[in-house]
Amino acid sequence: MSMKTYSARVRVTLKRGVLDPQGKAIEGALGSLGFAGVNQVRQGKTFDINLDATSKKQAEDSLNAMCEKLLANTVIEDYAVSID
Amino acid sequence: MSMKTYSARVRVTLKRGVLDPQGKAIEGALGSLGFAGVNQVRQGKTFDINLDATSKKQAEDSLNAMCEKLLANTVIEDYAVSID
Repeated sequence: MSMKTYSARVRVTLKRGVLDPQGKAIEGALGSLGFAGVNQVRQGKTFDINLDATSKKQAEDSLNAMCEKLLANTVIEDYAVSID
Repeated sequence: MSMKTYSARVRVTLKRGVLDPQGKAIEGALGSLGFAGVNQVRQGKTFDINLDATSKKQAEDSLNAMCEKLLANTVIEDYAVSID
């Protein structure tokens, strides 16, 4: 089967309820800089991945497996995969 | 004027051409784990921010200013703001 290159974006975010000290620090820093009205900041990660696959479905399966095995800590993080 | 709470997502990514050693390391690790066909990995950051503002326009202006002053290093990083 012929391979096609897919551009994907994976977003990894902390699950609701998990403390995010880095987000809290940014929230404090924004306040110190004079930005009013910031209620919450939560930091997350993105991975922009180019990968070869035979179909979009195969690319998606592969990306989900990457998240489970390496990109996300599924105990405390959620992930979302989107493919252009 | 009455305030409304907006949920925004800010994405900060490395500019094209800027080396991303962390992305390279993840690419190598994915290869070691048996994931074939990964051509490129670039890591970025997201900030999920809840903020009070009088209008969507005001929220957007405020978020752009936060990126310029704190969230992004505009020498090497691009940012994108989206508001729900």
